[in-house]
Amino acid sequence: MKTPILDRVNGPADLKQLSSPELTALAAEARSLLIQKLSVTGGHVGPNLGVVELTIALHRTFNSPVDHIVWDVSHQTYTHKMLTGRKQAWTDPDHYGDVGPYTDPQESPHDYYNIGHTSTSIALADGMAVARDLRGDKENIIAVIGDGALSGGMAYEALSNAATLHSNLIVVLNDNEMSIAEDHGGLYKGLADLRATNGASEHNLFKALGLDYTYVADGNNIDALLKAFAQVKDIDHPIVVHVHTKKGLGFAPAMANEEAFHWHVPFDVQTGAALKPNTAPTYADVVLDELDRQIADGKPVVAITAAIPGGFHLKKFAAKHPDRYFDVGIAEQQSITFAAGLAQQGARPVAFENTTFLQRAYDQMSHDLGVNKLPAVIVYSGGHVTGGDPTHQSTFDLAMLTNIPGMTVLVPTNAGELTAMLRWALTQTAGPVAIRLPGGHADDVAPAADFDVNKMRVLHAGSKLALLGVGSLLPLAQEVATRLKTERGIDATVIDPRRVDALTDADTLQQLADYDLVATFEENSLDGGFGQKVSAYFGPSAVRTLNFGAKRRFDHKQTRAELLHEYKLTVEDATAAIEAVLQ
Amino acid sequence: MKTPILDRVNGPADLKQLSSPELTALAAEARSLLIQKLSVTGGHVGPNLGVVELTIALHRTFNSPVDHIVWDVSHQTYTHKMLTGRKQAWTDPDHYGDVGPYTDPQESPHDYYNIGHTSTSIALADGMAVARDLRGDKENIIAVIGDGALSGGMAYEALSNAATLHSNLIVVLNDNEMSIAEDHGGLYKGLADLRATNGASEHNLFKALGLDYTYVADGNNIDALLKAFAQVKDIDHPIVVHVHTKKGLGFAPAMANEEAFHWHVPFDVQTGAALKPNTAPTYADVVLDELDRQIADGKPVVAITAAIPGGFHLKKFAAKHPDRYFDVGIAEQQSITFAAGLAQQGARPVAFENTTFLQRAYDQMSHDLGVNKLPAVIVYSGGHVTGGDPTHQSTFDLAMLTNIPGMTVLVPTNAGELTAMLRWALTQTAGPVAIRLPGGHADDVAPAADFDVNKMRVLHAGSKLALLGVGSLLPLAQEVATRLKTERGIDATVIDPRRVDALTDADTLQQLADYDLVATFEENSLDGGFGQKVSAYFGPSAVRTLNFGAKRRFDHKQTRAELLHEYKLTVEDATAAIEAVLQ
Repeated sequence: MKTPILDRVNGPADLKQLSSPELTALAAEARSLLIQKLSVTGGHVGPNLGVVELTIALHRTFNSPVDHIVWDVSHQTYTHKMLTGRKQAWTDPDHYGDVGPYTDPQESPHDYYNIGHTSTSIALADGMAVARDLRGDKENIIAVIGDGALSGGMAYEALSNAATLHSNLIVVLNDNEMSIAEDHGGLYKGLADLRATNGASEHNLFKALGLDYTYVADGNNIDALLKAFAQVKDIDHPIVVHVHTKKGLGFAPAMANEEAFHWHVPFDVQTGAALKPNTAPTYADVVLDELDRQIADGKPVVAITAAIPGGFHLKKFAAKHPDRYFDVGIAEQQSITFAAGLAQQGARPVAFENTTFLQRAYDQMSHDLGVNKLPAVIVYSGGHVTGGDPTHQSTFDLAMLTNIPGMTVLVPTNAGELTAMLRWALTQTAGPVAIRLPGGHADDVAPAADFDVNKMRVLHAGSKLALLGVGSLLPLAQEVATRLKTERGIDATVIDPRRVDALTDADTLQQLADYDLVATFEENSLDGGFGQKVSAYFGPSAVRTLNFGAKRRFDHKQTRAELLHEYKLTVEDATAAIEAVLQ
Repeated sequence: MKTPILDRVNGPADLKQLSSPELTALAAEARSLLIQKLSVTGGHVGPNLGVVELTIALHRTFNSPVDHIVWDVSHQTYTHKMLTGRKQAWTDPDHYGDVGPYTDPQESPHDYYNIGHTSTSIALADGMAVARDLRGDKENIIAVIGDGALSGGMAYEALSNAATLHSNLIVVLNDNEMSIAEDHGGLYKGLADLRATNGASEHNLFKALGLDYTYVADGNNIDALLKAFAQVKDIDHPIVVHVHTKKGLGFAPAMANEEAFHWHVPFDVQTGAALKPNTAPTYADVVLDELDRQIADGKPVVAITAAIPGGFHLKKFAAKHPDRYFDVGIAEQQSITFAAGLAQQGARPVAFENTTFLQRAYDQMSHDLGVNKLPAVIVYSGGHVTGGDPTHQSTFDLAMLTNIPGMTVLVPTNAGELTAMLRWALTQTAGPVAIRLPGGHADDVAPAADFDVNKMRVLHAGSKLALLGVGSLLPLAQEVATRLKTERGIDATVIDPRRVDALTDADTLQQLADYDLVATFEENSLDGGFGQKVSAYFGPSAVRTLNFGAKRRFDHKQTRAELLHEYKLTVEDATAAIEAVLQ
């Protein structure tokens, strides 16, 4: 692909030399590169295609990195990366892997944070602006935030605080009329009114919060953007620049299906069709099937998502049960406390969450659900050693959930356990229950008739050595047992603990009282996790313990295989470690 | 005190029989009772005095508990309690202790939740309204929220979601122009504009969020309130009723000093003067003294609070360093991510937090500070077994903080350690540091010259038994050691671990490798706490461990003494438990 204009751009300064037609041509080049690479690697399609012109105009107007641009979520920064010295990651397929999906200070001085959660940019910019003022400097501080991210309460907290500044702060609202899925909430009526009136509507959230405000109707027109940014550059007070853009612009399939192309697997560059369509049922489908049955039985089940219906196939549920489906926006706090209100009135809410985003609702899980013992159900994805990106790392779920008072945490190992746990969770009234979804394609194990929340599942009763495998690592525990049997003649007991927040199965634990060693396996940080509870339980006794799991650390650009080896979560490594203790 | 009207009120239904003058007289009776009891017991003065008329008008208009009134924070519900069958707790000093400071479903069917954190009421009401609609019922759902609580992001999330309802939901905004301290943030410019224009200003946050809106100028006039509530009773869509009230009305000292009388210790009922003035320096003063020194040294220190300056004497700091003091409102998320932005630009932010409110910023501590390794300092109060009220229970701080990747957590035992830790935290650049403030009056121990973040402090080197006492429980560990020495001749090693998120002092730990038992003491939930890390560390060895601490449980109406005994956090109980293991 020829990119004659981009070839001349090695940093933002080079943009200053380009004419208006050249800038527009640059946008076309960038967009073509984006589509080309995304079709091969997958990634955030719509968010990046929508902000090509916005990114060019920002870097043409401001002087990064002296001026500081903070990108909210930072999943829309591909063009930013192209313009700040990293274009080879798009122009040369051999370098496609050179850059990560989010801003990363290790990649460039134009990036200030690893960011992967929404709604943080204005608070960060608030802090940067105050630090600048303390230093007596004058650079521009710019936060770029999407309309979807505005649904998160911390964006509002930051806007209200920004209004108290008496110095430069520019909030660029990239309004593409979409969250990850469609927008939800009354605030979007206000934004729609502003778009419909060219910014003149009195339903102006930003002015109500004490902020100055301006509107750009065509946010994909570089000249219009340059004009608007020239007017706010070096401004002496906070201002919101509301820019109307088109998500997915320049790629017809992405414009036709904005939600599907928010993030997409590799696709056919002509049609947008996925190269490897994936239609096998997942464990989320197992949950939805059970919810269908519950509703058919007349149960007051309600499904809640905080703007991530896609990961759980919830649109399927919404189509069948529109009055029982609630997308609260990117507002995890609301998702949990809303569930608390539902549960208090006898409904049976099921919140579908991603563990790393669910962190936003820690207090709500504790204060609203835990203190009040309200039987909301949280079904969540997470608990998977990945490496790569620290902001979406999902190995802290048990450390977060299992230490919240009153929260029962269940980790099924197959569809049968999952269904049995869900049925129990939707029947009991003792308090909140979190269930970690297994990853991958669903098996077809029948519902576990023997499920008892206070009973572990003993897969094999041996002696002297017990291996407790949590969820995804039960197979590893089984493989280690096989290896020890074969190589050492050790007959290890293998247990699926099922419940991981508390050790309530006194009978099974008693059977381990004369054991030499109890080893635990969890795809979770060891600190605050299940294994440490087991170690503390056996601490006063002669039974030794050994915990296998991830480190309390954010991993970055490692492979899963590297991490599993480091964490001794392989048959070889775990077996060797156990043998070392037993010697 | 004579209360002829209140004598006739045993429940909300009795209000329906009262004339307008009688309702006004009832307000006067209630207010007198409030002041009388508060002067003896202490409590939330201003919030309760401001809503006497509002509470009477709500219960006269609506039919609680068929109609559901949800009180935000619920620290303003004393009059509500008086009118719903609990008046004896004000009329009879022998029964002053009968009711708690917050709503409590165990006290009354008119209370739906234990609530003690702000900004949750609208989300709860959202959920209750949806549950009602699913049932096909028609009762009114009312959320009463203060203007201070509006600064919390979850109130905004809930308002935006409420606007999507097509049924009854009434949000009563009790605007007394105050948070716990004064209001902070641009949203209050908007509220001031609304008050100044009798609700007509176009700077209307609620309309911008798609909500219907009405204004009541005199929120302490029962007739005006009755008129407004009559108009919204049984309304078929969500509406905000903005009511302007006067915090502390009826008690001159509370009106003259609204912040001091938000919550107040027992006071002289004539003058408002505290009966037992407390001017001894606290550990917060030790921190502020060090910040003064740092600023005098030219360091870019900034102090942040999320609306609780009083607990840390921060107004003293603000008076000296107005450009370095930031009250972000009841917005803990903002307090932490704002600190992240400051730290990224080289400033040295110190956020003053209460551990149970800090839960709101769990994700921000992880994603914004932890992932980005930003050296913000969090100084917090908490880590104290109390009983009484579950919503403010502070025994989960270590379970929350010590498992966040990258967060160093320090627990000083005296002023010298505190100062040394703070100096180190403000110098290092490796990442965020949380420091738990000791409780009570500050000692005058000199800064610990020997402080090394990777070194425990060994107070006494013995053999075979080690006692690790975290913070407030170091004295208990010392007493247990003395007891064991005296009674059993055991020479226990006593250690102040100082750092509790990780075991980084390999030398000291190595010295315990041939011990029989390592016992830990922490005023924190055992699950996810320091002791479990110690147990896991020694798990593979022959060293036994025993963890003393609180249970993972919300305590309610127990005394501290009862709980300490149950948790074996007394010399007798702990010594006996250790002896049982050693036998």
